Amino acid sequence: MPQPPAVLAFDTFGTVVDWHGSIAREIRALHPQVDGAAFARAWRAGYQPAMERVRSGALGWTLIDDLHRLILDEILPRFGLQAMPEDARRQLNKAWHRLDPWPDVLNGLARLKRHYTICTLSNGNIGLLTNMAKRAGLPWDCILSAEVFRAYKPDPATYLGVARVFDLPPGEVMLVAAHHSDLAAARACGLQTAYIERPLEFGADQPKDVSPQPGNDLHCRDFNDLAARLGA
Amino acid sequence: MPQPPAVLAFDTFGTVVDWHGSIAREIRALHPQVDGAAFARAWRAGYQPAMERVRSGALGWTLIDDLHRLILDEILPRFGLQAMPEDARRQLNKAWHRLDPWPDVLNGLARLKRHYTICTLSNGNIGLLTNMAKRAGLPWDCILSAEVFRAYKPDPATYLGVARVFDLPPGEVMLVAAHHSDLAAARACGLQTAYIERPLEFGADQPKDVSPQPGNDLHCRDFNDLAARLGA
Repeated sequence: MPQPPAVLAFDTFGTVVDWHGSIAREIRALHPQVDGAAFARAWRAGYQPAMERVRSGALGWTLIDDLHRLILDEILPRFGLQAMPEDARRQLNKAWHRLDPWPDVLNGLARLKRHYTICTLSNGNIGLLTNMAKRAGLPWDCILSAEVFRAYKPDPATYLGVARVFDLPPGEVMLVAAHHSDLAAARACGLQTAYIERPLEFGADQPKDVSPQPGNDLHCRDFNDLAARLGA
Repeated sequence: MPQPPAVLAFDTFGTVVDWHGSIAREIRALHPQVDGAAFARAWRAGYQPAMERVRSGALGWTLIDDLHRLILDEILPRFGLQAMPEDARRQLNKAWHRLDPWPDVLNGLARLKRHYTICTLSNGNIGLLTNMAKRAGLPWDCILSAEVFRAYKPDPATYLGVARVFDLPPGEVMLVAAHHSDLAAARACGLQTAYIERPLEFGADQPKDVSPQPGNDLHCRDFNDLAARLGA
């Protein structure tokens, strides 16, 4: 590893919080007849295409809350929920504000925060990330989001934006993420990168390949492993 | 008071932190021959005119760190410090990241944070506010700044921006500030307002008039008083 970073920027969905388990649980509680795991995956599957419409310019700048809502309206009929009233849709859409962290996260972040500035770098909007952090107790020093930079990852403006906010060279910022594509884009901007294994990101029935890929500065089992590797 | 707010947005310089005392102390430690109190006031006096150059369009979008630096370069000769080298100027300019909170702040914010979402709404840039919070232990749920909205207070985009970030009507956001002009602008946007007395903002030798003005929902001695008035 090069010199230690000053700032650790964390991807959020999948890396910090278990979107699959949290959304599936919420759906099952509301509609026991629905396959919660399939619903969660269908909702998330709309995420990259929706952001791509923004990136390509087909859709103007749109917050993730609003993209989540567009996707929700699209998938409800597929699960027999087309009659869901407006209020219930709005309430369900905020399930993304109520995602639970993976079990190692609170302890790992508390250790890391003592030695580093820790922030989010998520495509989620600021309000979503703040509500999530407050509910879950995530101790961010600062919430950075695509909304601050008006660009979605993997746009270089997001990774370089973190370095600019803290007036640091990109090499003193480390992106922490459970997704190799996010890390590769950060690396291309000169950031350090740490991969976190989240084998259950898509649920226990669809285990994810978490084998190391070359190029990352660190490959960690979880946030406690990251803290140990960073001397925190 | 109307219904209680959901979000409390705090002005920072003067309201949360004692810029005058902190800057004066830092100058006196570095240059005992300089009048630290006068230096602090001169530096701060350049702040509104510098922002006005941005607001009027004479200067493009510029972060407070860079405005502070422009003002610093202007005032150094007045205090016999024109020979200060570049590195020392850069280091001194970050004194604004190292401001100390007023004595009631940490306790008051801890109480308020249990019941409300607490965020900054400052013209300071995100990096400055994050470094300040980390050093001083300010437990913000979220750091909002002119930098997020690309507009300086009292531009309505800043006050309404807080409401938009949290998907709330403006009336469910309360601005907390030690400056009546800031509060008046927030009120014109429909926010609730709380005035905080900071009689020593400009130093013990220039006490500030902190008498109540009509229109504010609350007039508080300090953050503990605010917490008590808000049931926190």
